[in-house]
Amino acid sequence: MAAPVTESIRTDNTLALIRSLRTHGAMARIDLAAANQLSSATVTSISGELIDQGIVVERPPDSQGPGHRGRPKTLIALHPHAACVITVKLSINEVRFTVGNFCGELHHDDTLAVDTLALTAEALSELLIRHIDDLCLRMTSACGPVASICVAVQGIVSPLRGSIVWSPAFTLRNVDIVSPLRARFACPVQLENDANCISAAITRHPDYMAIPNLAVIMLGYGVGMAIMIDGKPYLGAHGSSAEFGHTKYEANGALCACGKRGCIEAYVSDYALYRDAHTLLPLPAGDSAHPSEEQMQVLVRLAEDGNPIARQIFDKAGHVLGTGIANILALFNPDQVLITGSGVRAYDQLKPSLEQALNDALVAELIGQTRLTTYGWDHDMTCMGAIQLALKAADRRLMQADRPRALPLA
Amino acid sequence: MAAPVTESIRTDNTLALIRSLRTHGAMARIDLAAANQLSSATVTSISGELIDQGIVVERPPDSQGPGHRGRPKTLIALHPHAACVITVKLSINEVRFTVGNFCGELHHDDTLAVDTLALTAEALSELLIRHIDDLCLRMTSACGPVASICVAVQGIVSPLRGSIVWSPAFTLRNVDIVSPLRARFACPVQLENDANCISAAITRHPDYMAIPNLAVIMLGYGVGMAIMIDGKPYLGAHGSSAEFGHTKYEANGALCACGKRGCIEAYVSDYALYRDAHTLLPLPAGDSAHPSEEQMQVLVRLAEDGNPIARQIFDKAGHVLGTGIANILALFNPDQVLITGSGVRAYDQLKPSLEQALNDALVAELIGQTRLTTYGWDHDMTCMGAIQLALKAADRRLMQADRPRALPLA
Repeated sequence: MAAPVTESIRTDNTLALIRSLRTHGAMARIDLAAANQLSSATVTSISGELIDQGIVVERPPDSQGPGHRGRPKTLIALHPHAACVITVKLSINEVRFTVGNFCGELHHDDTLAVDTLALTAEALSELLIRHIDDLCLRMTSACGPVASICVAVQGIVSPLRGSIVWSPAFTLRNVDIVSPLRARFACPVQLENDANCISAAITRHPDYMAIPNLAVIMLGYGVGMAIMIDGKPYLGAHGSSAEFGHTKYEANGALCACGKRGCIEAYVSDYALYRDAHTLLPLPAGDSAHPSEEQMQVLVRLAEDGNPIARQIFDKAGHVLGTGIANILALFNPDQVLITGSGVRAYDQLKPSLEQALNDALVAELIGQTRLTTYGWDHDMTCMGAIQLALKAADRRLMQADRPRALPLA
Repeated sequence: MAAPVTESIRTDNTLALIRSLRTHGAMARIDLAAANQLSSATVTSISGELIDQGIVVERPPDSQGPGHRGRPKTLIALHPHAACVITVKLSINEVRFTVGNFCGELHHDDTLAVDTLALTAEALSELLIRHIDDLCLRMTSACGPVASICVAVQGIVSPLRGSIVWSPAFTLRNVDIVSPLRARFACPVQLENDANCISAAITRHPDYMAIPNLAVIMLGYGVGMAIMIDGKPYLGAHGSSAEFGHTKYEANGALCACGKRGCIEAYVSDYALYRDAHTLLPLPAGDSAHPSEEQMQVLVRLAEDGNPIARQIFDKAGHVLGTGIANILALFNPDQVLITGSGVRAYDQLKPSLEQALNDALVAELIGQTRLTTYGWDHDMTCMGAIQLALKAADRRLMQADRPRALPLA
């Protein structure tokens, strides 16, 4: 039976308050009421309940720092250890586990080198279960109970069926990754495309949350994208939109990780840049097909130092990326194109030929007023977004009765 | 002062009933009530008023044909001459005027050959005013008062400012075309991009109105597009989205009418096909840069008859179009791609290389379940959509008091 309407409104209001506190940090009840268009009485009542449940804590006025004027207000904040979430990011040759606390902050980060292309479905789920089991044991005492798990993967996923339809990280197709995790862990488990995770991070970022039409391009091992239309992620009819990395620069061009030729990714991604570079340049030994951050940094430094081969490689990549972005402008006419991901490390090298290609490709009226910006990240945005998506599921779970209680604040 | 709420609800309901009758033709009041989720009493009251105003007419039961069973219902229908609308389609070297009746049917169609690239802003508005003046004189007695004008143009327009920002039809930029027409004609005047007109026609077409994510590609003198997302036309942040014709097939490729190189249009449009063909093939004399339908038909027939040069030209165009459509699938993942426009005449010639290019470009999972279909048209879909958009403005105008009365039905 559905919950009575008043109860469901109260749940919605409670979820909204938790989200506000997660986005903006500690707030006074009166500001929280204004930001959510609720009465002070409602906020006082809900926050009282959340404090009783250990989800929210009061911050004494004296903790508000010396710059504060006027009569200090008591602030309330999320209890960082009310619950935690675990995220798994599956990339080619790498599986990354993060633990996020209840405030959405990164608490723990493990990266495993794994030959993902050789994995069977059973080996994959065993690997994830073993590592998550271990994290649950190690984290719960420090970080609260694990309330939700989110698996992020590059490629095409079916969030509803919980299966990886196709990913460059696996030779497997249509792998149901969610069922084995649900069978093992008594919490919500979701599967998401990496670009949707980035969207989740972006839409909670104060600098980007107000931009209605935003194309986010992610440069890194591969080239991904997230498209926000009217402030919502656009997923396409069957969830495989925004595959910018696999739009064409040229038919029959360079070989892409997807097995086809001429994709943007085949010129702009880390593996493509390093593939061209490592035959001719003095680069560090290591897996040249899956270059590490250190390997990529050496390549970028060669270009910065004026090495003509390195310069030429980034020139070409910038030209290809600019030509691809021209298609995004012509088709989506977004307010802003945001380039992010670890590949932003080389943006200064890409920029001149990127801008030239854009101007060569489109009449000024089609370039229009779209802003082109970059955002280098400290933390991996896919993981940070996956933490946000996992917390969304965790919040709903916390609204249910008989939930595990948070630990007392240390 | 805003209209009272009950009055504004009645206006909304009246507009909804008029739209239903325009889409579905004559209907019984009871079916009209069900289709619009209104009470029979409301429909009876509103339709009575519309009959008094001469906007709606009753159809006697005996006009419902011999196949009708049961007790015949009295149908009501729009009075086709309650008002008419005029549309102007501006293309390179051609200005087309159509008159649509109140049911949305094409009543009159004039096409003028005009050297559009040589026009000044004054000459353009004089030309339009002179011809529309003449149409008003000739049409009003047969078709009812002119209630609205819609100007459709290929390129980038600012519907709000009423100006043509950029169009391949003109060397002019930022031409305010709406103000002179508004100053002359006492009715609403709107300016629309041709692709948005196509959207307006498509969303009223029973075969396509229920498809949430639809990409409509228009082949003809140029290559245009309209994108429906969640059932609504997607216009982009500044109204210049869906410029598929100017996405890139290859950097530094064939010269496009926009002045840039390598656009899809520079290989697939009528002018591009004929440009390649007319130097080597026995084609009819005439303006080879702006080929007529007859000229294009001769070229298609040569390919159908196996002429290797003509075959090669369409092979290349199909390959380019397929590569471009691959980008649409990768970025939008639509439910359906609909190829329409006069260029559909050569679809059988384009199809093999188009499908090959699509399969070469994308892994099967990205081609996915998107359906690729064609729709040849009898009437120009831009004009038919412009009539629909003009009627939308006319409907609102008819709701105002002191409107001109329709003529009695002949």
